[in-house]
Amino acid sequence: MFTVRTRCSESLARVGTLRLAHGEVQTPAFVPLATKGALKLLEPRDVEALGYELILGNTFHLLLAPGPEVVAALGGLNEFMRWERPIITDSGGFQVFSMGHGTVADEIKGRRGRAGNGQDGAILAIDESGVRFRSYVDGRERMLGPESSMQVQAALHSDIALAFDECTPFHVTREYTARSTERTHRWLERCLSWHGEHGPADQAVYGIVQGGVEYDLRLGSAAAVAASGCDGIAIGGTLGREKAQMHEVVSWVTRELERLAPERPRHLLGIGEVDDLIAGVEHGIDTFDCAMPTRLGRHGMALVPDPKHRWRVDLTKSAWRASELPILDGCACPACARGFSRAYLHYLLRSGELTGQRLVTLHNLNFIARLLDDLRGGIEATRLEAVAAELRAGGTPGLLGVGAD
Amino acid sequence: MFTVRTRCSESLARVGTLRLAHGEVQTPAFVPLATKGALKLLEPRDVEALGYELILGNTFHLLLAPGPEVVAALGGLNEFMRWERPIITDSGGFQVFSMGHGTVADEIKGRRGRAGNGQDGAILAIDESGVRFRSYVDGRERMLGPESSMQVQAALHSDIALAFDECTPFHVTREYTARSTERTHRWLERCLSWHGEHGPADQAVYGIVQGGVEYDLRLGSAAAVAASGCDGIAIGGTLGREKAQMHEVVSWVTRELERLAPERPRHLLGIGEVDDLIAGVEHGIDTFDCAMPTRLGRHGMALVPDPKHRWRVDLTKSAWRASELPILDGCACPACARGFSRAYLHYLLRSGELTGQRLVTLHNLNFIARLLDDLRGGIEATRLEAVAAELRAGGTPGLLGVGAD
Repeated sequence: MFTVRTRCSESLARVGTLRLAHGEVQTPAFVPLATKGALKLLEPRDVEALGYELILGNTFHLLLAPGPEVVAALGGLNEFMRWERPIITDSGGFQVFSMGHGTVADEIKGRRGRAGNGQDGAILAIDESGVRFRSYVDGRERMLGPESSMQVQAALHSDIALAFDECTPFHVTREYTARSTERTHRWLERCLSWHGEHGPADQAVYGIVQGGVEYDLRLGSAAAVAASGCDGIAIGGTLGREKAQMHEVVSWVTRELERLAPERPRHLLGIGEVDDLIAGVEHGIDTFDCAMPTRLGRHGMALVPDPKHRWRVDLTKSAWRASELPILDGCACPACARGFSRAYLHYLLRSGELTGQRLVTLHNLNFIARLLDDLRGGIEATRLEAVAAELRAGGTPGLLGVGAD
Repeated sequence: MFTVRTRCSESLARVGTLRLAHGEVQTPAFVPLATKGALKLLEPRDVEALGYELILGNTFHLLLAPGPEVVAALGGLNEFMRWERPIITDSGGFQVFSMGHGTVADEIKGRRGRAGNGQDGAILAIDESGVRFRSYVDGRERMLGPESSMQVQAALHSDIALAFDECTPFHVTREYTARSTERTHRWLERCLSWHGEHGPADQAVYGIVQGGVEYDLRLGSAAAVAASGCDGIAIGGTLGREKAQMHEVVSWVTRELERLAPERPRHLLGIGEVDDLIAGVEHGIDTFDCAMPTRLGRHGMALVPDPKHRWRVDLTKSAWRASELPILDGCACPACARGFSRAYLHYLLRSGELTGQRLVTLHNLNFIARLLDDLRGGIEATRLEAVAAELRAGGTPGLLGVGAD
C-alpha cells in the first residue's frame, strides 16, 4: 500500500507512493479539507487541476448531515461529491471531544454561526463505549465511538479511515493524558477488530499516536499503534504551545516509528503552516491535512514567500486599495496567472463578493501544492537541506527549479 | 457597429452581430450580471466557457465602491475584473430611483443585508440635474445625473454605456410617467452631448425608451430616442403587471423601432425568465440582461425545461434528499456533465456550502446560453416558430438540434 521511493540521507524525510482504492498519492503531500463533503467555494476539478491527489472528509459532520446512509445510497463519498481520487476520513474524535474540552474546534464554531437553529452541540457522556452528544444540526442525541466511527467511515467508503481517538488537549494533567492515551489504544484495537469483520477490504485504517507533550507517553503510544497492525499511523493530540515544541514532539514520534514501522505511511493531523510543513517533511511525515490555507483564503489572507510575516499578506488591508500587483509575481495559480490585481481582490473581499474568497483560496492551495512539489523534488535530488533553507528564507515555491512534478 | 445577418419572415426576430471595442457579440444574446464588477461566485473564465460574450456592470454600485477613479487607474472595468470581452454598464438610474420609489431593487436589498453598517441609502433630492442621495456604503452624500453617470461610465470604459434615465414604476400616474419620460429624453440629449465631448470614442451609447404602460407615451419615447442619434436603444421602466402586458408593451416599442431605426440594436432591461426571453426574441430584442438565472441559482432554484413550474425546480426541497438524478439529463453544464446529483446539491444548499450555489448558478447560466443558441439557430434556419413552440412546450435547450453555435 505504501512504497518509499527515496530516503533523505540527512533526515527522516522520504518520497513515497501511497496506493489506495481510488489511485495513487505521491508523498509528502498536503491534503485539502472537504470537511462537510465539499471543498469550500471550489469544485473537485479546481483542486485536481492544482495537482492534489488526496482530500479529507469529516466523519463527525457527515454523520450529522446528510447522514452516512444517504452518502452510502449514493455510492459513497467519492461518488457523492464527484471526487475521483483518494479520500481520507477522520474519525470524528477531534470534533466530538472538542465540544467537551472547551477548545471548540473552529469547524464547529463555523457551523454554529451558520446553522442558526439555536441548538449547539454538547457532550452528554464519555465512557469506554465512546461519546454521547447532542447534534448541532437537529438537537438529537447521537453517539460516536470506535465501532460507530468505523461504521460511518465504512459507509462513506473512504480510502483511508482513521481510528477513533481522543484528541487530548494541552491543558489537562499528565494523569489525564496517560489514561486517555490508554483508552485510545483500546479503541484502536476495537476499530481494527470491527473493520476486520465489517469494513471494506479496500479501505486502509490508520491508528493515531497520542500522548500529549510527554516523551514517554508519546513513545509508548507510537509502540502501541505500531504493534496494532494498522496500515498507517497518524499523529494527533496536542503538540505543545510553541512551534519548537511541536516540531520536537513530532520528531520523538517519527524517530520511534522509523525504528518500529519504517515502511508504514505517517500522517500529521491538523498541521499546515508553511514552516511546519517544511519541518514535518524533514521529520519524515508523509501526509498533512489542515484547514489553514483554505480558511486563510476565505478571510482574505494570501500566502506569499515572506517568512517574516508568517508567509501571509492580508489583502483586506487598505494598503492594497489601488495596487496593480498580483498576489505573487510568477505564480501560476488561477488568480495570479490570470492577472487579478491585489486592488481587485481587496475590493471583492471588502464588498463580500465571494469570487474574491474563491480566488485567494485557489492561490493558497496552489502555493502549498508547489511547496510540497519542491520538498519532494528536493528529496529526490538529494538536496532537501538546501531546498528547505531556500524556502525558509523566502524562496517562491514552484520557482526554485526543483519541483518534482 | 451592428449588423443584422438574418431576419425572421414571421416576426421581428433577427440574428445579428454587435461589433464592440472588446470584440463581437452574436445576438440575440443574454447578458449575465457582474453588478459590482464580479460574477457572483464565478470567475470570468467560467462565464466565457459557457459561451457568453457580453456581461453587465453596474454604475451605481461601482461609483460607491471601489469608485470609478480606482477602476480607471487599474485600466478600466475590463482590466480591473479581468474580463476580456465586451461589457455594458447601466446608468445607475434604476438603482438610484429605486431608493425613492419604495420598490427597492433587490440588488440594493442584497447589499444592505450584507453591508451591515447601519446606513441605508436614501434619496435626498431629485431635480433636473439628477439625483442627490446618501451612499449605502459610507453614508456620504453623492450625486448621480446625466453627466456624472456618463463620466463614471467613461471611467469604467465599458463597451456600451446606457444613458441616465428614470425607471418609472408601475404605481405612478400617467401624468407622472409623462413628465418623467420627457425628462429622460432631455437627460438623453445631455448624456449624448457630454459623451460626444468627453466620452471614449470606442464606447457606444444606448438611449432608453420609457413611457410606462401607456401606448402613446411609449411610441413617443421610441421616436424621441430614435431621433437622438444614440448607437442603440434600450427598453426600460415598468412593462406592466402581467407577462401578457409586458410582451405587448415590448411589441409596441419594437414595432415602432423597426419602422424608425431598424438597424440599431435593441436591449431589454431586466427581463430574463425563459418565456420572456422567447417572446422578447420574437419581438425583435437583440440583448437581455437579468439577475434571474444567477440569483435563482444562489437560492437553490435550478432551471429545467418544465413550463408548468416556470422552468424551475427547487433543489432545497426535501424531495431531493436522496435523488441520484442530475439537475437535467443530457445537460452539458459543469454541474450536470460532471454527475453532481440533486441529492448532493440539495445537501450543499441546505448546509450552506457555497459550492452548491456555484454549481446551480453555472447550470442556470448554461441553460439560458443554450436557450439563446437555439433561438438564434431557429432564426437562421428560418424555423423560429417551430423552435419557440418546442421550447415553450418543454424542449430542452441545447438538445433540439438547432443550436447556432
